[in-house]
Amino acid sequence: MSDYNQLVDPDILKRSRKWKGYVEAKLGFKNHWYPVLFSNEVEEGQPVTAKVLGENLLINRVDGEVHVIRDKCMHRNVKLSRKLECHTKGSITCWYHGFTYRWSDGKLTNVIAAPNSKIADGTRGIKSFPSQEAKGLVFVFIGDSDFDVPPLSTDLPPNFLDEDKYIMGKRENVKSNWRQGVENGFDTTHIYIHRDAKLIANNNLLLPLGFAPPETPVKGWETHDDPSKPRGIVDSYEGQHLVPAFHGTIEGEKVLEISDTSLEGKNLIPGQISIWMPATLKVDPWPDPSLTQFEFYVPVDAENHMYIQTIGKTVHSEEEKRDFIQEYHSRWKVFGLEDFNSPDIWAREAAEEAYADDYGWIDESLFEADTNILAFRELISKHNRGIQRPEDLRP
Amino acid sequence: MSDYNQLVDPDILKRSRKWKGYVEAKLGFKNHWYPVLFSNEVEEGQPVTAKVLGENLLINRVDGEVHVIRDKCMHRNVKLSRKLECHTKGSITCWYHGFTYRWSDGKLTNVIAAPNSKIADGTRGIKSFPSQEAKGLVFVFIGDSDFDVPPLSTDLPPNFLDEDKYIMGKRENVKSNWRQGVENGFDTTHIYIHRDAKLIANNNLLLPLGFAPPETPVKGWETHDDPSKPRGIVDSYEGQHLVPAFHGTIEGEKVLEISDTSLEGKNLIPGQISIWMPATLKVDPWPDPSLTQFEFYVPVDAENHMYIQTIGKTVHSEEEKRDFIQEYHSRWKVFGLEDFNSPDIWAREAAEEAYADDYGWIDESLFEADTNILAFRELISKHNRGIQRPEDLRP
Amino acid sequence: MSDYNQLVDPDILKRSRKWKGYVEAKLGFKNHWYPVLFSNEVEEGQPVTAKVLGENLLINRVDGEVHVIRDKCMHRNVKLSRKLECHTKGSITCWYHGFTYRWSDGKLTNVIAAPNSKIADGTRGIKSFPSQEAKGLVFVFIGDSDFDVPPLSTDLPPNFLDEDKYIMGKRENVKSNWRQGVENGFDTTHIYIHRDAKLIANNNLLLPLGFAPPETPVKGWETHDDPSKPRGIVDSYEGQHLVPAFHGTIEGEKVLEISDTSLEGKNLIPGQISIWMPATLKVDPWPDPSLTQFEFYVPVDAENHMYIQTIGKTVHSEEEKRDFIQEYHSRWKVFGLEDFNSPDIWAREAAEEAYADDYGWIDESLFEADTNILAFRELISKHNRGIQRPEDLRP
Repeated sequence: MSDYNQLVDPDILKRSRKWKGYVEAKLGFKNHWYPVLFSNEVEEGQPVTAKVLGENLLINRVDGEVHVIRDKCMHRNVKLSRKLECHTKGSITCWYHGFTYRWSDGKLTNVIAAPNSKIADGTRGIKSFPSQEAKGLVFVFIGDSDFDVPPLSTDLPPNFLDEDKYIMGKRENVKSNWRQGVENGFDTTHIYIHRDAKLIANNNLLLPLGFAPPETPVKGWETHDDPSKPRGIVDSYEGQHLVPAFHGTIEGEKVLEISDTSLEGKNLIPGQISIWMPATLKVDPWPDPSLTQFEFYVPVDAENHMYIQTIGKTVHSEEEKRDFIQEYHSRWKVFGLEDFNSPDIWAREAAEEAYADDYGWIDESLFEADTNILAFRELISKHNRGIQRPEDLRP
Repeated sequence: MSDYNQLVDPDILKRSRKWKGYVEAKLGFKNHWYPVLFSNEVEEGQPVTAKVLGENLLINRVDGEVHVIRDKCMHRNVKLSRKLECHTKGSITCWYHGFTYRWSDGKLTNVIAAPNSKIADGTRGIKSFPSQEAKGLVFVFIGDSDFDVPPLSTDLPPNFLDEDKYIMGKRENVKSNWRQGVENGFDTTHIYIHRDAKLIANNNLLLPLGFAPPETPVKGWETHDDPSKPRGIVDSYEGQHLVPAFHGTIEGEKVLEISDTSLEGKNLIPGQISIWMPATLKVDPWPDPSLTQFEFYVPVDAENHMYIQTIGKTVHSEEEKRDFIQEYHSRWKVFGLEDFNSPDIWAREAAEEAYADDYGWIDESLFEADTNILAFRELISKHNRGIQRPEDLRP
Repeated sequence: MSDYNQLVDPDILKRSRKWKGYVEAKLGFKNHWYPVLFSNEVEEGQPVTAKVLGENLLINRVDGEVHVIRDKCMHRNVKLSRKLECHTKGSITCWYHGFTYRWSDGKLTNVIAAPNSKIADGTRGIKSFPSQEAKGLVFVFIGDSDFDVPPLSTDLPPNFLDEDKYIMGKRENVKSNWRQGVENGFDTTHIYIHRDAKLIANNNLLLPLGFAPPETPVKGWETHDDPSKPRGIVDSYEGQHLVPAFHGTIEGEKVLEISDTSLEGKNLIPGQISIWMPATLKVDPWPDPSLTQFEFYVPVDAENHMYIQTIGKTVHSEEEKRDFIQEYHSRWKVFGLEDFNSPDIWAREAAEEAYADDYGWIDESLFEADTNILAFRELISKHNRGIQRPEDLRP
């Protein structure tokens, strides 16, 4: 019980070498920006809850601006959300004794059941989190109160914030740790599970069963680690290091085959898959040569992550935007985000049981194709801004 | 696993200062009397089960007298209650091998499947608990076999046992630790959650939203710690230390108001609220100037308590008694015990999640109005007769 | 968390004296043979799963021969059974990245999504378990890869493998540790719970309520501990050491009685009950003078065992065999395995709660009649081939 803050067995951490921090970050990395909800999910004066990195959040929009506070009364630590009471626009009142907090900074302004109490002296309150809206998403900075908050852009993939980029998306809870999301998404050879996706025929893709490692290993990925910019690993799918495999063989017997591998009229995508700190994938282009997919694997708690899938398109007019919105709903959401990615969700949940007790991190047998994943584990272990721990969830 | 008997993290206990014992007493305090069932729930020759302080009890009435034994065969530690077998009036037989115990003292008298076994030599058996009936309730002394059993009266609030006091009541399981019951009941400012109770109109009560602490703090409660008498904290609601608040204000804006605060014809109750060791509240008078409410928060296990609510009235004749019984059923049970107290049950269960991992005891931010609660924590930490631990549940 | 391999509290083990190994073997003993399924449950090319000693197994029949491998891909440790893919008769392919293993030895032969990967060099793979079919059951040797596999016969009761013995049976999961199965089965005085069994009238049995220990204790059982043969404890029901009891008495009052105890025309069975390493009971003869019952209590995990009940008959012709099969279905399965043994299953599950936290092993009060059980605890603690631990389930 005294190891309440011990997320992972020290013996496992000791054996995790260059990615110790990553293995320890079961609750995610703190002092980073994370998307939490879509902007249209936060309506004026309608507080909603969310959970990120183990933090129970209360989110409200006041005079158009989004505010985020911890869902925990300072007095008895009860959840304010158990029974929402907002007597003024700018405040929320605890249902139990009337402790009242300002949405804008979390400060305790009054205790209704004890007027004039000295506890409401304006210095105390509950934790308040920096938030920012961008591209139709609400981002929250989960971190230490005294941390110098970095620009949102340093925690997003390149081009996500581009002015003419229009973003559409959806989200759902996945019953696995966030790292199963990261690794499933960035994994080169898991393409194997997508071989029957409807998107292949729908968008005329040429998708191999896998990739043969070349005779002489070639590093196909590049590391971006400038702290003033997005940091991540960019894996190119167009270089010499990946030889697409169009048939499968077992002990010399051919067992699987992509029937039509002619390049004529086929979409050869993606060109690049990259993974960005803290937990975002960029697939470019995808699911169409004109689009980019950005996926966020936001830690909810040790056993869940919020899978936020978005597709971005560069639009030059309102008409292009309208067309994209329509196409998103009728085609890319259905064949891309839903059908194509559904085996990914299934795979992460299936892999979770192998990693839930943390032994997976030392019992796994990674191979040539997984070196890009290892590069990310190493990058984030070195450059993260802090590991979220249970103690961070307490006053 | 070797800390099977470690109920609470030592680091938390270290930081709990004057109420260390209370914080540790997750399973309650042993060597005290607790009410377990109403007398009419224990019928002649019809054994029933109950759980108190983690103890699984078997309770039976034999020739009118109530007996209580541990529900655990000494041989294989199975629960006798899994399949009740009583072949004689004064005994209970284990379903597995026929180990037979006397209700009166728990001694093993025979093993049916092994006649003449030396194990039934009259010295061995299962734990037997002292019990006593009073005021329509069955009380059990949960404690060490060699403890000198104190009078029941030392573990009950003053006046509960008064000869002319007639008691009616009900009980239900609440999904919180017993201490959430104690603190919710004795809490001065939680009156805030009762502002919409039907009892207010029904019995013409004047109930404030809360109480303002006076400019100069005044101690409003008194400590009773004579070991030969009931020990507790008595908080007077009539002194200078509590200024009733009839409206609520947030940053200068009036947000809530008790509309009619004229005293004319109003019942100004209660006059006193007191809390008594081990876990009983007395609200006097309540819910009517002629009545007293006694509430027991009996520890069931670490996560549950039995909420036994009773109302007592001093009656001078059989007719007065009959009238009270009728009024209890038609009015006080409905508007008092059920409607008025239902937010209390809800609040305890909501607070439980903040205290379940014991961090609530060091993460809470108590304030002026909570000093009476702290006085009780200190009193019981100092004067209890022992902390119940898992080892107490074992042979 | 660092005590991942600590199955049982060391304090409890210290107090378990001569049967320390047995108390520690919560997951069973490794390096022994266990029956897992009936042969007819494993069909050609239809992989099925099973769990034994905590091991998740994949079992398949290839060209008539049964093969058993661990249900865990070496790459990411996912269960292959989550989505079975067999592209060739002799192999199974992981659904995630196409890692392909041979049924015959568990070796990794190919990675479909990465042809030519050096990881499939023929030296790596997943654990493969020796298996053998006998008497209509599939036996698996759960143990260390480098352990010198002993003959199946050393882990079976005498006569089970006799050439002319025909075996029929059924299996079901019981929600208790395997040791509750062993001890319930071999327990002399638990005969008490069978007093109302329909088999008694159906097969004209004379079954006592229990057995009185003789004035001067006589050892009624014999130990067999030659490592080249089956090892176990044989308890005779025909000696001087057991005096059948036909009535029950409580403090001098007669409370239960077997009404007809005349021997005339009655079946006085069994003659012997014996228990064999690792976890098999032999009741001989039973449920008829012409039959023998063999029961296996196969550890599934810490909380479950597979109860495999079989009845064997010596048959000298195909006709005798056919008759036995028919009688098994119409009579012995219904009145023996199902009706007679159902209180045993119930009793094991009821006893489980007393032993689940391991304190039962030191809190129990065994008596004269349990010495045969203690003899087995001591035998197996001394002669087992290893204790199964969580680390044995990992790569």
